[in-house]
Amino acid sequence: MSSLIIGEKSFTSRLLLGTGKYPSFAIQKEAVQVSKAEILTFALRRMNVFEPSQPNFLEMLDLSRYTLLPNTAGAKTAEEAVRTAKLAKASGLCDMVKVEIIGCEKSLLPDPVETLRASKMLLEEGFTVLTYTSDDVVLAKRIEELGVHAIMPGASPIGSGKGILNPLNLKLIIEQAKVPVIIDAGIGSPKDASYAMELGADAVLLNTAVSGAKDPVKMAEAMSLAIKAGRLGYEAGRIEESDYGVASSPMEGLFST
Amino acid sequence: MSSLIIGEKSFTSRLLLGTGKYPSFAIQKEAVQVSKAEILTFALRRMNVFEPSQPNFLEMLDLSRYTLLPNTAGAKTAEEAVRTAKLAKASGLCDMVKVEIIGCEKSLLPDPVETLRASKMLLEEGFTVLTYTSDDVVLAKRIEELGVHAIMPGASPIGSGKGILNPLNLKLIIEQAKVPVIIDAGIGSPKDASYAMELGADAVLLNTAVSGAKDPVKMAEAMSLAIKAGRLGYEAGRIEESDYGVASSPMEGLFST
Amino acid sequence: MSSLIIGEKSFTSRLLLGTGKYPSFAIQKEAVQVSKAEILTFALRRMNVFEPSQPNFLEMLDLSRYTLLPNTAGAKTAEEAVRTAKLAKASGLCDMVKVEIIGCEKSLLPDPVETLRASKMLLEEGFTVLTYTSDDVVLAKRIEELGVHAIMPGASPIGSGKGILNPLNLKLIIEQAKVPVIIDAGIGSPKDASYAMELGADAVLLNTAVSGAKDPVKMAEAMSLAIKAGRLGYEAGRIEESDYGVASSPMEGLFST
Amino acid sequence: MSSLIIGEKSFTSRLLLGTGKYPSFAIQKEAVQVSKAEILTFALRRMNVFEPSQPNFLEMLDLSRYTLLPNTAGAKTAEEAVRTAKLAKASGLCDMVKVEIIGCEKSLLPDPVETLRASKMLLEEGFTVLTYTSDDVVLAKRIEELGVHAIMPGASPIGSGKGILNPLNLKLIIEQAKVPVIIDAGIGSPKDASYAMELGADAVLLNTAVSGAKDPVKMAEAMSLAIKAGRLGYEAGRIEESDYGVASSPMEGLFST
Repeated sequence: MSSLIIGEKSFTSRLLLGTGKYPSFAIQKEAVQVSKAEILTFALRRMNVFEPSQPNFLEMLDLSRYTLLPNTAGAKTAEEAVRTAKLAKASGLCDMVKVEIIGCEKSLLPDPVETLRASKMLLEEGFTVLTYTSDDVVLAKRIEELGVHAIMPGASPIGSGKGILNPLNLKLIIEQAKVPVIIDAGIGSPKDASYAMELGADAVLLNTAVSGAKDPVKMAEAMSLAIKAGRLGYEAGRIEESDYGVASSPMEGLFST
Repeated sequence: MSSLIIGEKSFTSRLLLGTGKYPSFAIQKEAVQVSKAEILTFALRRMNVFEPSQPNFLEMLDLSRYTLLPNTAGAKTAEEAVRTAKLAKASGLCDMVKVEIIGCEKSLLPDPVETLRASKMLLEEGFTVLTYTSDDVVLAKRIEELGVHAIMPGASPIGSGKGILNPLNLKLIIEQAKVPVIIDAGIGSPKDASYAMELGADAVLLNTAVSGAKDPVKMAEAMSLAIKAGRLGYEAGRIEESDYGVASSPMEGLFST
Repeated sequence: MSSLIIGEKSFTSRLLLGTGKYPSFAIQKEAVQVSKAEILTFALRRMNVFEPSQPNFLEMLDLSRYTLLPNTAGAKTAEEAVRTAKLAKASGLCDMVKVEIIGCEKSLLPDPVETLRASKMLLEEGFTVLTYTSDDVVLAKRIEELGVHAIMPGASPIGSGKGILNPLNLKLIIEQAKVPVIIDAGIGSPKDASYAMELGADAVLLNTAVSGAKDPVKMAEAMSLAIKAGRLGYEAGRIEESDYGVASSPMEGLFST
Repeated sequence: MSSLIIGEKSFTSRLLLGTGKYPSFAIQKEAVQVSKAEILTFALRRMNVFEPSQPNFLEMLDLSRYTLLPNTAGAKTAEEAVRTAKLAKASGLCDMVKVEIIGCEKSLLPDPVETLRASKMLLEEGFTVLTYTSDDVVLAKRIEELGVHAIMPGASPIGSGKGILNPLNLKLIIEQAKVPVIIDAGIGSPKDASYAMELGADAVLLNTAVSGAKDPVKMAEAMSLAIKAGRLGYEAGRIEESDYGVASSPMEGLFST
């Protein structure tokens, strides 16, 4: 399999793993290791980088081994998102940022207007910008035209586990994109992750599907394999679908003549 | 992962691979190796075991390393299926047989009446019997009640690549079964194989999805990984689905108070 | 729209309505009227035809206006089903009977073996036989070959409201059938009934979707319209699906040149 | 059924019919009549209102009987859309306008940025504005917040006949909306139209599904019935779905005790 390239960095793994809501730091650590993820995401709000007296929820991880991708979750406007990202950069955490601006508290779906504005502003500040967006095809194009380094359309609402609600839109987004497309949000099980990759996505970002599984470590391994399977399946070129049967064995019997 | 046990044999791999219709014997051989399958299926009709002057289409494989599972494809009645299976046994090929009696040339879907009869007759002859059937839930129960060693419901028509048309029926079959359930027929891509395993299937049988892919060797690897991913995902216990979003990151911003 | 012909009878309506489980006899009566159904189904077991001292749950209906289609629900074997049907005939209730033999108490899915046997026996007794079956394509063919007057494949488990789980199987059954195909069981809402008809079904049988709705009378009307809509849609010939957009309006603007 | 109210007007029919691409003016006229639509849509670009020497493609219709809803198809920017709409208003055609700004020639999906801008500008000009948009949930909210009189999310790409790709998003849009939600684009057959209404939509806009059917007049009738069926089904309150069977007939047989 080829590498995933985002901005100026190159990655072997096509799984980006979120670090939120694991049952314990120990399970978080083991799930991260087993997943073989090279990029870890987290909410800047949760990272107590700004409050050194508090426990740092990434403290058990050897952060030098990972690329950190903080997100701006909690921000409701572009300005809030930019301030969050700048603080993260100032503290030496990262140059990459995931724009995540929620526009609806119930569905946790992203706000297109503030997402566009925040992406533009962060690019002007020199960030490597990955933008979480809905699966709106033209919106994804408009975001890409700003110059972002990756677009991250959601498969379904964050944490919903609904999987890929609209594979056609994702396929259209992937077809038109010239930067990496990372399917983000809504993945529920390995089949969903594999499907995302089979559609031609460059990577998948997961959090709740792993951290919320009964056995997060085992699910981390499952997802790691599923993403590889999906990528290989995409590269291998699947068979066409047919409404009728297509024999793999001969239809005439040994004795039928 | 635990082992797959069929009859008196135990297997590590949960992928059964068909040997028909590869572009070449060399590709067939490599795909078989990469897939890590331990059980190979083939149509007795195609195997020139009965015509030694003809090339044997399994000849490049070291058959001592595999369990062979011949199928009765081509038989249209129970009697034809039994005669085929007995010849295979007499030639020392195997004790296991996959009952496959097609009832419709267009859809290649199985005949429930002859399938039941053939399964019963082959059990009486002492075979280890694995029965290919539709996803009819009560039919699967009736077949199991005969004493078969595994039931093999189809996901969709043979070679169609449609994937799992009716996950509910497969789930009901798996829930009620006390023998292994092997999803057979219709799998199109890794996501389908993973899904079958996530539903709780014990194994997946593939042929066209691999042999008909643009790159069969790569697809064999993809399927091998997908089946592991699906099994691990099943064991790990996936998250519940929700219609609304469930936050993995905090909803209040750094600056929102 | 053309007529529905079953055995020697001809019907204008393509909705068969079940009479079980309405909130009251008055609502049952009104729903039946609004539905414009000409064939009413009921379980012989529930009809107190054999116990005249008990209230007859069809008593508010002017039965002379309807064709009655009793079913054999409750029978677990062909013999039980035949005895039930003969009693109904002896009491002058009907010549038509719906074979319904449940093989699984949990899923309420039909037993293929007893269903085949009962259909054969009832045909030999001279009944007009309509057989409820799974969506197993070859099983439907075997049932039709017995000489039944209609086949009634289920869309999903009785009362489940899951709609059409496997449209491909229903399409294959409809394509091969020379007798009417009546989709029976599992319909949940008008879209499902319309879909069944769009696939080319001759009629739809409903019960729980109407009787269990919050407003059964309004739902009866909805279903009546949906079945007409689906039939007309089938006859009208729908557009092909396309993955990309197909303009109905011009793409060049008034001012764009 | 209650009335559909858009701006200051009230309608009995919940079907809005497009007037483009019929095989002939005569068929267009008959389809319009049979559909019972009260609102007709057309592309201003196609209407030769600006070129009186050309045949007017609506000329066979008695326009006084219909509310006309011109759309801005062909416009690629808000400014173009506004100019088109103002010309239509000046010629006395209408006060209502459907904002339709395509952002991708291949998928014909709408441009969120120009759509927002055009909606705002047309509201400021005093139009009754109905806005065609993707099924992006927060985008629909932002459009509604501008003060538009209806939002028109697409079910799938224009003319694709794919039906409803993402029912969850449509449901979320409908739940949050305080103005009418009209499902627009992608409907392929009556079941899709019924489904849109069952989700709680206020109306459905169709064009290609009718004009492109083999028999557009019959399909117009089918769609008219399906939309009524779906609305009644929504009002009637459908049954819950269940994974297992729910008996409408008794499970114990007449003879089983």
